[in-house]
Amino acid sequence: MLRVGVVGCGAIGKEHIKRLNNKLQGVTVVVVSDVFEEGAKTAAALCDGKVYTDANALINDAEVDAIVCTSPGFAHVETVLAAIKAGKPVFCEKPLATTADDCKKIVDAEIASGKHLVQVGFMRRYDKGYIQVKEALDSGEFGAPLMLHCTHRNPEVGTDYTTPMAVHDTAIHEIDCLHWLVDDEYESAQVIMPGSTKYTHSELKDPQIMLLRTKKGICIDVEVFVNCKFGYDINCEVVCEEGVVKMPAPATPIIRKEGRLSTGIETSWINRFIDSYDVELQDWVNSVAKGEVNGPTAWDGYVAAVTADALVRAQQSGNIEAIVTGECPKFYK
Amino acid sequence: MLRVGVVGCGAIGKEHIKRLNNKLQGVTVVVVSDVFEEGAKTAAALCDGKVYTDANALINDAEVDAIVCTSPGFAHVETVLAAIKAGKPVFCEKPLATTADDCKKIVDAEIASGKHLVQVGFMRRYDKGYIQVKEALDSGEFGAPLMLHCTHRNPEVGTDYTTPMAVHDTAIHEIDCLHWLVDDEYESAQVIMPGSTKYTHSELKDPQIMLLRTKKGICIDVEVFVNCKFGYDINCEVVCEEGVVKMPAPATPIIRKEGRLSTGIETSWINRFIDSYDVELQDWVNSVAKGEVNGPTAWDGYVAAVTADALVRAQQSGNIEAIVTGECPKFYK
Amino acid sequence: MLRVGVVGCGAIGKEHIKRLNNKLQGVTVVVVSDVFEEGAKTAAALCDGKVYTDANALINDAEVDAIVCTSPGFAHVETVLAAIKAGKPVFCEKPLATTADDCKKIVDAEIASGKHLVQVGFMRRYDKGYIQVKEALDSGEFGAPLMLHCTHRNPEVGTDYTTPMAVHDTAIHEIDCLHWLVDDEYESAQVIMPGSTKYTHSELKDPQIMLLRTKKGICIDVEVFVNCKFGYDINCEVVCEEGVVKMPAPATPIIRKEGRLSTGIETSWINRFIDSYDVELQDWVNSVAKGEVNGPTAWDGYVAAVTADALVRAQQSGNIEAIVTGECPKFYK
Amino acid sequence: MLRVGVVGCGAIGKEHIKRLNNKLQGVTVVVVSDVFEEGAKTAAALCDGKVYTDANALINDAEVDAIVCTSPGFAHVETVLAAIKAGKPVFCEKPLATTADDCKKIVDAEIASGKHLVQVGFMRRYDKGYIQVKEALDSGEFGAPLMLHCTHRNPEVGTDYTTPMAVHDTAIHEIDCLHWLVDDEYESAQVIMPGSTKYTHSELKDPQIMLLRTKKGICIDVEVFVNCKFGYDINCEVVCEEGVVKMPAPATPIIRKEGRLSTGIETSWINRFIDSYDVELQDWVNSVAKGEVNGPTAWDGYVAAVTADALVRAQQSGNIEAIVTGECPKFYK
Ligand SMILES: NC(=O)c1ccc[n+]([C@@H]2O[C@H](COP(=O)([O-])OP(=O)(O)OC[C@H]3O[C@@H](n4cnc5c(N)ncnc54)[C@H](O)[C@@H]3O)[C@@H](O)[C@H]2O)c1
Ligand SMILES: NC(=O)c1ccc[n+]([C@@H]2O[C@H](COP(=O)([O-])OP(=O)(O)OC[C@H]3O[C@@H](n4cnc5c(N)ncnc54)[C@H](O)[C@@H]3O)[C@@H](O)[C@H]2O)c1
Ligand SMILES: NC(=O)c1ccc[n+]([C@@H]2O[C@H](COP(=O)([O-])OP(=O)(O)OC[C@H]3O[C@@H](n4cnc5c(N)ncnc54)[C@H](O)[C@@H]3O)[C@@H](O)[C@H]2O)c1
Ligand SMILES: NC(=O)c1ccc[n+]([C@@H]2O[C@H](COP(=O)([O-])OP(=O)(O)OC[C@H]3O[C@@H](n4cnc5c(N)ncnc54)[C@H](O)[C@@H]3O)[C@@H](O)[C@H]2O)c1
Repeated sequence: MLRVGVVGCGAIGKEHIKRLNNKLQGVTVVVVSDVFEEGAKTAAALCDGKVYTDANALINDAEVDAIVCTSPGFAHVETVLAAIKAGKPVFCEKPLATTADDCKKIVDAEIASGKHLVQVGFMRRYDKGYIQVKEALDSGEFGAPLMLHCTHRNPEVGTDYTTPMAVHDTAIHEIDCLHWLVDDEYESAQVIMPGSTKYTHSELKDPQIMLLRTKKGICIDVEVFVNCKFGYDINCEVVCEEGVVKMPAPATPIIRKEGRLSTGIETSWINRFIDSYDVELQDWVNSVAKGEVNGPTAWDGYVAAVTADALVRAQQSGNIEAIVTGECPKFYK
Repeated sequence: MLRVGVVGCGAIGKEHIKRLNNKLQGVTVVVVSDVFEEGAKTAAALCDGKVYTDANALINDAEVDAIVCTSPGFAHVETVLAAIKAGKPVFCEKPLATTADDCKKIVDAEIASGKHLVQVGFMRRYDKGYIQVKEALDSGEFGAPLMLHCTHRNPEVGTDYTTPMAVHDTAIHEIDCLHWLVDDEYESAQVIMPGSTKYTHSELKDPQIMLLRTKKGICIDVEVFVNCKFGYDINCEVVCEEGVVKMPAPATPIIRKEGRLSTGIETSWINRFIDSYDVELQDWVNSVAKGEVNGPTAWDGYVAAVTADALVRAQQSGNIEAIVTGECPKFYK
Repeated sequence: MLRVGVVGCGAIGKEHIKRLNNKLQGVTVVVVSDVFEEGAKTAAALCDGKVYTDANALINDAEVDAIVCTSPGFAHVETVLAAIKAGKPVFCEKPLATTADDCKKIVDAEIASGKHLVQVGFMRRYDKGYIQVKEALDSGEFGAPLMLHCTHRNPEVGTDYTTPMAVHDTAIHEIDCLHWLVDDEYESAQVIMPGSTKYTHSELKDPQIMLLRTKKGICIDVEVFVNCKFGYDINCEVVCEEGVVKMPAPATPIIRKEGRLSTGIETSWINRFIDSYDVELQDWVNSVAKGEVNGPTAWDGYVAAVTADALVRAQQSGNIEAIVTGECPKFYK
Repeated sequence: MLRVGVVGCGAIGKEHIKRLNNKLQGVTVVVVSDVFEEGAKTAAALCDGKVYTDANALINDAEVDAIVCTSPGFAHVETVLAAIKAGKPVFCEKPLATTADDCKKIVDAEIASGKHLVQVGFMRRYDKGYIQVKEALDSGEFGAPLMLHCTHRNPEVGTDYTTPMAVHDTAIHEIDCLHWLVDDEYESAQVIMPGSTKYTHSELKDPQIMLLRTKKGICIDVEVFVNCKFGYDINCEVVCEEGVVKMPAPATPIIRKEGRLSTGIETSWINRFIDSYDVELQDWVNSVAKGEVNGPTAWDGYVAAVTADALVRAQQSGNIEAIVTGECPKFYK
């Protein structure tokens, strides 16, 4: 039974606590911490766990075998570094850290520790649809992938959502899972800005088309459209040398009504990938037992940060921006 | 140039006149007739044709090479027999006649004349979807057909539409085209009456499930639902020994809007098979030139009448009713 | 922690042991039994449990809180009655028993015990697709259901599979879940026998069309085709007064290859409903804790047996056969 | 009856002759010409027409009311200018001319003539699918279009097909119909070159992604993939402020076979738009009668040439290239 301490008891922190304790096997949450004590207490009630306000105390608690970090992004680096120092496995919600530099520090620390300890919470790699596409690609039946056409559409965002957030908060999931899908590395980024929808505001260019090129020459386009109104609509089509593979949307009843034949489009991101959180954390629990990291590594977290930075530069420059991560360390291969 | 006389200048009569004169090749309407003179005159204006009120005068007019009969069903037998007598080809809108006996008279007269003169206006045989299905079946790729699942759904009907009309006015199209599709003959009929929709009235059981069995043992179910509200929805799925072939609906744009991914369902029968009228009449014009009947024959018209009678008996009895047409005459093979 | 004893350690017995022990929450398998001792031992190794060859010993073991019965159908009645006698909840794989009389005995015994103890393993009620359809129907958006068009297609069966098995081993799942879906009771049954596929043998009429009518007048047709070759293809379309709701197939990638746009059809029944076993047993574990039976009851097991008998009679007679279960006891409402 | 002369009796020339003479209304081909006399004679036999080897003789023949030009692209300018000079309507197969300068000459000559005489053979504007999409956009139901995602995929090309031909011979159809679809003008072009498929050769980069921006800021991506192997697959999805409209593929039967649920993808460009040639030429015949040009004008032919030039520059430079056509003359509005 893996004994877990959860750092950061907000929205997803509480979801993960319930998930770990009530749905998954071989794991139990024994301690929680939050800078905001009331929050920690509410969360502790969900799992009958101890409460800290200091993340370090939790990390170093002898009863804690592994850490789940669900504090806000800016607080991740400290917790993850402390977990590495303590030699304890840590599942860190995305992003690994808010700067590429901080991600690099984590990478260096993990390598120095000699142990695989860090997994980043990019849960799409555990989504059934993406996995089906990856299996199809890996089967070899379709030849080499050449292009990916993707969309990340979202019904609407608040007025505090601004242009760079289309990268950091939205496309970040594509950034991680697309290079994994085709088993390749990014080389450059470009962003195209169509005229904006009337449903946006002055600080947000919406939609945007993000273009990524990989080292093998795969060209990826991702339509990011966060005020598309009609639904949370994630698409991913991989054009290969001998065929095209498109991720299916989750199945819903086929309805005939009022002159239309229709199926549902998910409207909330929460529901779209809800199952993958279970699969992701169960896989983490299982691999921790073996001292492995099966899912997105600290290196993947660093790659995501570097790629996101290049896309933000490209949003501003209009140019093709290089994505320079350096060679992937042997440790992560 | 085939010179045609049109008998009966109502709704479809006028449509056919425009079609023959403005869209099709090798044909021109030269005379029209209607018991109602004003109607005939309006129609004549569409084609610059002569006007009769007497169908016989039209049939025997030396300028008329062939007849299109679009009077009401009860008036067909007289016109068709007269055309046969005159030795002139006649395209008769469905039904060939309103009783099996009258249809039989036409069959006998045509055989006696020794010439192939009569085509019945069952236009679904000219619909692209049915033809695609027939081609698939005839390719042999799917093995022998075993079952057909069909629907004939219609948004709504008036209060003068009664239970037997579900056979005579609605399922009649399936009656003709399904045996053609599988190249087989009917053996028996049964009708199942589910509880009726609240949108019907006391004289109409709606929906109904009509079951037909062919001589080779193919079992056909046709859901007839004339107040289904949502659309004019014609489906036909053929289950074979080595696969299933389903007729596609006409293509319409694929829409994402308000949480639904949808395509359109036709709402009017007029539009659903509009293209097939053109193909049907052009084919008739072309085959008349060769002294052939390519489409549904008088025998098919007779088979439809006998089958419809059996279904109406089955509506009343709740039993399985035999469909007895006798052997198909050599003349029609 | 619910301590479970499993009776019958064959194929599905072992699957359920792994499921209960490794995937589900709040439950552990502590004892297993099988008439075949080696089988019991192999199974015991999966869960580190005690071994019996006598089901009664297992049932009455003080460490066993509840029983899962996965022996062959003929052995169910004894185990279930013994469990009721012991006052212990029992999850019995379908069928509840092999005769309606035996099912009735169980119903009577459970009512006499005054406690809700028996759940039958009709797992389709826990399938996401059926649940989505049920939610759509229950929403009221589509009005009353009038007809159900269903298929139960299976790639192929062995030569020991005979005509009545199309009811007992195949349609049995539809029998249970369709009346649940529309919240109604069966009234009569009919079976239509199309000409058989060349892939069957003399003892098996394949395909068959099973027709069920409910007390409210809903008409159900189920195409049962167990040598359809192309896949395990479960369909369920509910035609309502104001629209049609069709169960979706599980989502698979959309492929463009060699002139075809395609998705996958499941080929094995094992995979098609694999997820629902988890949901079903977790739900059972959870409801046992509350002394409830949420899923299919002993009464449902009895209804399935009576309905199956009527269908088998209908296979032989060709007639419409009454389905007489008597009034559903208050205990089960 | 419009009397037409056809210049250039190759593949499509003969197709158009048969179309004009055997399928369409109000038109007859009376003369044909080809530099290669045998070809002209073969074609003449299809329509019982006179034969010239000199296009000018044909154009000035008093029996010719209008010209259809189906010679190779390089020969169009001469014929079209001669037709304008003769004051006769001319339907010119795409391209209008092989250089923007020549197109401009035609534009200037037509304006100078004061009469609308030239239609260019971009037949996609007459395709049912594009028209359905345009109607949806024009309905206003979806708000302003923001992005278009398109594919032009073709099974394979010969080794004489080179990189610039992906623009001139393939994307040219999108170039014309996409700006028409959204009623806008192009502003700039970019071409992205993914790694090439193994099925191409050294002189052809395949696939390519062509990016166009309109003056209103609509961003268009067109995947051009001419050795995609699996089919001739034309897609066009328009993302609007309030929904997404995607062009449907032509309907084909829905097949269940060997574990797949599939529909057909067209494999030949000839079939994909075969119906639109009929609609296009009938529309041309009808509008000639009114002295109008309903379809693509000489200006559209010029715009296509300028846009194609920018795309070819972009193929070479890798940069965003301006598309400068100058203001659309009043004559064409
Ligand atoms: N993978 C996904 O799809 C997904 C979805 C949602 C959120 N997230 C990520 O999860 C993280 C948390 O998001 P959220 O929506 O739950 O945020 P939240 O604001 O609801 O919760 C954050 C919690 O952390 C606490 N906190 C703040 N600083 C802390 C510190 N230094 N140490 C410990 N606790 C601290 C706050 O009091 C709060 O309770 C973010 O990084 C976010 O990007 C990922
Ligand atoms: N194939 C199809 O899909 C289809 C569709 C519609 C109608 N139809 C058939 O076409 C026929 C006409 O239908 P409609 O909707 O045009 O009817 P309608 O009532 O609009 O027209 C019938 C016309 O026939 C005239 N008429 C009546 N008795 C006549 C007679 N003895 N001789 C000449 N004219 C006479 C009437 O005055 C009227 O103008 C019917 O048999 C109908 O079943 C077929
Ligand atoms: N819900 C479903 O989809 C589903 C699927 C498969 C099987 N089933 C049902 O599960 C039951 C078992 O099926 P299976 O495929 O595992 O069969 P199986 O033959 O593989 O296993 C049955 C086991 O029970 C043992 N057994 C025989 N008599 C016994 C007795 N009196 N007491 C205890 N054990 C006894 C046998 O030795 C064997 O190990 C059947 O009723 C079957 O209908 C349901
Ligand atoms: N709209 C479409 O989808 C489409 C499809 C195919 C072709 N086209 C266009 O149609 C034109 C013809 O294509 P094709 O495939 O029929 O070519 P083709 O080579 O088969 O035929 C061209 C014919 O023109 C003749 N010719 C050559 N020079 C001539 C001249 N100066 N005057 C008269 N005749 C001359 C040739 O002898 C030949 O018979 C091209 O411009 C092509 O781009 C358009």
